[in-house]
Amino acid sequence: MTSIREAHGEPLAILAAGGNVPYQVASAATAAGRKVLVIGLEGEADARLKAFHYQTIKWGQLGRAEEMMSAHGARDVVLIGSVSRRPDFHTMGVDFGTLRLLPRILKAMVGGDDQVLGNLIGYLEERGFRVIGAHEVAPELVAGAGLLAGPRASQAMLDDARTAFAAARAIGERDIGQGAVAVNGLVVAVEAAEGTDAMLQRVGDLHAMGRVKWSGRAGVLAKCPKPQQDLRVDMPTIGPRTVTAVVKAGLAGIVIEAGRVMIAERAETLDAARDSGTFILAAADGDVRLKP
Amino acid sequence: MTSIREAHGEPLAILAAGGNVPYQVASAATAAGRKVLVIGLEGEADARLKAFHYQTIKWGQLGRAEEMMSAHGARDVVLIGSVSRRPDFHTMGVDFGTLRLLPRILKAMVGGDDQVLGNLIGYLEERGFRVIGAHEVAPELVAGAGLLAGPRASQAMLDDARTAFAAARAIGERDIGQGAVAVNGLVVAVEAAEGTDAMLQRVGDLHAMGRVKWSGRAGVLAKCPKPQQDLRVDMPTIGPRTVTAVVKAGLAGIVIEAGRVMIAERAETLDAARDSGTFILAAADGDVRLKP
Repeated sequence: MTSIREAHGEPLAILAAGGNVPYQVASAATAAGRKVLVIGLEGEADARLKAFHYQTIKWGQLGRAEEMMSAHGARDVVLIGSVSRRPDFHTMGVDFGTLRLLPRILKAMVGGDDQVLGNLIGYLEERGFRVIGAHEVAPELVAGAGLLAGPRASQAMLDDARTAFAAARAIGERDIGQGAVAVNGLVVAVEAAEGTDAMLQRVGDLHAMGRVKWSGRAGVLAKCPKPQQDLRVDMPTIGPRTVTAVVKAGLAGIVIEAGRVMIAERAETLDAARDSGTFILAAADGDVRLKP
Repeated sequence: MTSIREAHGEPLAILAAGGNVPYQVASAATAAGRKVLVIGLEGEADARLKAFHYQTIKWGQLGRAEEMMSAHGARDVVLIGSVSRRPDFHTMGVDFGTLRLLPRILKAMVGGDDQVLGNLIGYLEERGFRVIGAHEVAPELVAGAGLLAGPRASQAMLDDARTAFAAARAIGERDIGQGAVAVNGLVVAVEAAEGTDAMLQRVGDLHAMGRVKWSGRAGVLAKCPKPQQDLRVDMPTIGPRTVTAVVKAGLAGIVIEAGRVMIAERAETLDAARDSGTFILAAADGDVRLKP
């Protein structure tokens, strides 16, 4: 864990894409007494970020972001936020910094997008910056072990949480995915390239078609990072939408790995869980139990 | 491997559901010099089975099937064929033999259907019958190692075959599923309760949406049994429809475990592979290579 107070007087740079997590991170850093320089991605970054020292870049202006950070003496940088639109590499204005990185980005994209952020980190570190995880700045983005919200899980649900968690971890170890669903002792879905939402939709469909049978609400979604995942820039995330999708699929709850899965919009997420009677458990090191 | 000639004079009973595999099995047994008693499931069994010594039962008439086998002195029995319609337990006439088995069947159905056949085997064995695998009677239903049909796979495709096979085996070891798809080094889909067809549909959708990118045909479907699967009655199967689905998904080929995956309608399946330029490889013990 990096203390965000270590750097005397240096501002923390926050490269901010979409969603409201960047605002949380900037607020947390400010509250901890650290100056921040927020560099927002145009068309994605939250307007509330203008409350901080704020500048913007467009897609492809990595060199410009570097210049901004250097001009402010920022060496620590957080890369955070979601991207709703893919950049159009044909029309975007690529500056020199991005151009230097582009061969690595293109190489990474051939084999899937997962390595793009890894390349960006490597590039920034070579150029003297230190990439910090958002959860190191705002520890409330992740959860300690225990029951975070919702009703107590039954013994069968706890068993499903364990089964789903073990499956998610096993496929993570093979670099396949971050999630799995178990219902009444059986793993009924495993997430690979389709993502969590599509997997939950599939579970709901299998249930509706009678291909997987249960009555009432049963079964658990598990999410945990791959062991090799760089949590500084790529942490599995749940949010209010995850709760909605879990309820729609007929599942009873969610288990995440404590300290290693981000809860975006924490208050809304936990409220949605309480309101819908969906438990959210955080398990330390795969140890799934109730510590309310 | 059980020799089907061992039982002197005793007929081999074949409990036949749908599809043309039961006919293949009955033909193979007859060709090997063994008498057969085919007991067809009404509404499912292939009409060509009437060419053999043939009787029929309805759903729920397990006791009747037992009587037929005993009356003919048959102790060896093959359970084979697909079921297109689920039995309606409310309206079917359940005889005494089935009634004795029903508690186990119902118990198994609570936790998914996988154990129904296992219970049926246990029941038959307790009553003095010996359950034999269809592939032991008709070895041509499974494949030896090597390239079975289609073009030679490129090195990248062989690598994908290895990656997909390792993923399929890993999820099999966790009792999750029998199949996986890898494209350009990444596992993009893992099969759990949805089945192979739905997984292949998903891969095609991800490709069409640009969520997984490749050009031309690339990537491989792997199928192998779970280690604990009882291959006598429950063997993973590919057929002409699998080839069609693989082509539609844009994949280049299929890898199956040699000796442990059934090729239903072998000639049609291999023809479909050749005609569509889709390779089918059989790998011995996960050892994926070209032995044409």
